[in-house]
Amino acid sequence: MSENKRVIIIGAGFAGLKTARELSNKNVDVLLIDRNNYHTFTPLLYQVATCGLDPSAVAYPVRSIIADSPNIQFMMGTVQSIDTDKQLVSVQTVSNGVRDEAYDYLYVAAGSSTNYFGNQSIVDNAFGLRDLDDALLIRNHIVRLFEKAAWTEDASKRQALLTLVVVGGGPTGLETAGSLYELYNDVLQKEFHRDLKARVILLEAADSLLLPYPDNLQRSAQKQLEGMGVEVMTNAFVEEVTNKYVRLKTGEIINTHTVVWSAGVKANPLAEMLDIKLERGGKIPVETTMQVIGLNNVFAAGDIAYLKNPKDGKSYPGLIPVAQQQGAIVAKNIMNLVNDKELKEFRYFDRGSMATIGRSRAVAWAFNRIPLSGFFAWIAWLGLHLVVLLGMRNRIVVFIGWVWDYIFYNRTVRIILEEEKLKSKSEALRDVA
Amino acid sequence: MSENKRVIIIGAGFAGLKTARELSNKNVDVLLIDRNNYHTFTPLLYQVATCGLDPSAVAYPVRSIIADSPNIQFMMGTVQSIDTDKQLVSVQTVSNGVRDEAYDYLYVAAGSSTNYFGNQSIVDNAFGLRDLDDALLIRNHIVRLFEKAAWTEDASKRQALLTLVVVGGGPTGLETAGSLYELYNDVLQKEFHRDLKARVILLEAADSLLLPYPDNLQRSAQKQLEGMGVEVMTNAFVEEVTNKYVRLKTGEIINTHTVVWSAGVKANPLAEMLDIKLERGGKIPVETTMQVIGLNNVFAAGDIAYLKNPKDGKSYPGLIPVAQQQGAIVAKNIMNLVNDKELKEFRYFDRGSMATIGRSRAVAWAFNRIPLSGFFAWIAWLGLHLVVLLGMRNRIVVFIGWVWDYIFYNRTVRIILEEEKLKSKSEALRDVA
Repeated sequence: MSENKRVIIIGAGFAGLKTARELSNKNVDVLLIDRNNYHTFTPLLYQVATCGLDPSAVAYPVRSIIADSPNIQFMMGTVQSIDTDKQLVSVQTVSNGVRDEAYDYLYVAAGSSTNYFGNQSIVDNAFGLRDLDDALLIRNHIVRLFEKAAWTEDASKRQALLTLVVVGGGPTGLETAGSLYELYNDVLQKEFHRDLKARVILLEAADSLLLPYPDNLQRSAQKQLEGMGVEVMTNAFVEEVTNKYVRLKTGEIINTHTVVWSAGVKANPLAEMLDIKLERGGKIPVETTMQVIGLNNVFAAGDIAYLKNPKDGKSYPGLIPVAQQQGAIVAKNIMNLVNDKELKEFRYFDRGSMATIGRSRAVAWAFNRIPLSGFFAWIAWLGLHLVVLLGMRNRIVVFIGWVWDYIFYNRTVRIILEEEKLKSKSEALRDVA
Repeated sequence: MSENKRVIIIGAGFAGLKTARELSNKNVDVLLIDRNNYHTFTPLLYQVATCGLDPSAVAYPVRSIIADSPNIQFMMGTVQSIDTDKQLVSVQTVSNGVRDEAYDYLYVAAGSSTNYFGNQSIVDNAFGLRDLDDALLIRNHIVRLFEKAAWTEDASKRQALLTLVVVGGGPTGLETAGSLYELYNDVLQKEFHRDLKARVILLEAADSLLLPYPDNLQRSAQKQLEGMGVEVMTNAFVEEVTNKYVRLKTGEIINTHTVVWSAGVKANPLAEMLDIKLERGGKIPVETTMQVIGLNNVFAAGDIAYLKNPKDGKSYPGLIPVAQQQGAIVAKNIMNLVNDKELKEFRYFDRGSMATIGRSRAVAWAFNRIPLSGFFAWIAWLGLHLVVLLGMRNRIVVFIGWVWDYIFYNRTVRIILEEEKLKSKSEALRDVA
């Protein structure tokens, strides 16, 4: 056995992976745990859901990333419990066995999950869009519904099949609504030899889209969405979702079988395993060193961590740069603890934020100072996402896909994979082996 | 309603699609039925199963193919029954409703299914490789097993996890075995920081591989496989497959959790719906005009049809050129019936056959006269498959993938999609809508 200190990282998202890469070939033994065998490039999930990209284009095998890091091991599994006294993490591994893994330093970077605000009707009947499985479910569902609509004679039933509701006026909601509209009305509709005009409705509970953005960008985003044909409803609070309709607080009913819920996030419930008092949204309170308050050898970063931005008194937003910059500090501070040096404090370098809406449509707020919208914001969005995407092959494939779809108004990833068949056939073989 | 005759095509495989395209914009109304919304490029399925290609690279949306054919409608659904007296086809559609569709001319091109020769242990525990769902199941299974092997201490258990058995010495068996070997020992093994050498065993019941090929190509194929590391066993008849081992007729036991069965095909059981006496392998007997014997307005072609090749007295093999050439004759003869003209007879133009084995390894038998093996056969295989693949974007994506993997010895499509999650979340929403 090595005499190195052992670090356990929970989560191979942007925060966890950044730390792992910074600890590569350092004098620590790292165990990286994730429930999937891949890292997900979440900003492009909506393109998988809307038939634009293949799942593998936004997923990258964790083991490929750490192939040249002999001090990092990867374990595919789900964390069952954390014992901060005994310094043990209990993992349900892919082999169905539970393993207790010991750590000197623990780092919780398990990200966020969808917040349905305790409304069970939404949990049951709306689609989340947080991971690859979610995206594939949506893709299968909407393509299947379009096939159904093609053979549905009743006009009102057909309209319900062709009405898609997206809840949440943040970047994900905008991107999903815009992309769904283009998929239905620019791509699918051309191939069905009858009139199948789809409605896409974006619901936002507040009185404007893109809340943290400046006014002019909020208005620009709404104008661009409406310009392409998306119906935007602000001050629209969803009270109930069934498999047949959405009911708003005003009593208004929208007949639909497709509701994508991107109206809220909360911390991954794994945060509760630390047995400390959590902050708003179930987040783990951390020091500016990214150490969990009260637990010196435990770190947290990214969406699951709660740390106030001194500029506005709010917790840092759930953005990739925040997760990555925090992850880098975690790696530094773990090595500082190992080497008995002084810890560094996290300081956020804010490069701004952006959201895309559709063909040549986007808004961007560079460095939170320079507003951009329309074509140039869109080009900036494309370029940035290509650069940040992991793996050169993925970049090439995504780039070709985008260029292709832009020129030909097409989406080729429109295959319906039968979940039932996948399930039943795998049951016999997965547990026993 | 149009006064055109109505043609129903069952199956959007190579035979059905060829006919549909030939009937495009002709004076007939065509209804094309398939259980999937995509056409599958079956020769590359094994590359999906072995993490080389994305599902969408070998699947092409049927509606895209017929987008410019207003006389062709597409219905996603499963055929329940055929009534040749009333000229009705009953279809369980994607919307869960059953529809009766009337035809003037029926064309059965439903292809083949895996032949397990009545051995239930094989049905239950071996993987078929006939469609995209099969391929994804295999991919999920083998990557999951490798993750498990990485954390299995017991040497014999670990070896069983890393032993892969492919049954069947035809082109699919060879291609799958070679590709599995490369995936495990060139790609995955590099990324696991311990010794995880995999065994790949190819079993063939006869005394040589690639039975219809000439001797020297059979020997070359076996030599190339063994040269890369695959263990080839001929005269190996499988008697039992469990989730823990394969038992041969000799009593020999191979401990494995992964058996890919490509040892036999039979006609799609849909053939039985015609209520006629079927030929060997459950195939539909047809005239040289591709009309079903005894049913003048019903055609069959491709893997589901039985027609003797006058050259060797055997039914034409289940190859894409056979299906496509037969499909073309079906289209011609349907129009000849419509226009009261004389029917044409099918004559096969045989361009030969080929099988790839791995990096720079293949055998080809051009025009059934010129034997090729090794690098040049491999290049011929790559080129031909790119040309035949549907859709320019797919061709580009597949080509880049191949070049990339060739240079970097990599396979990036290694994501495990959790079938269980896909299943449970979709249940609530799919049937009600």
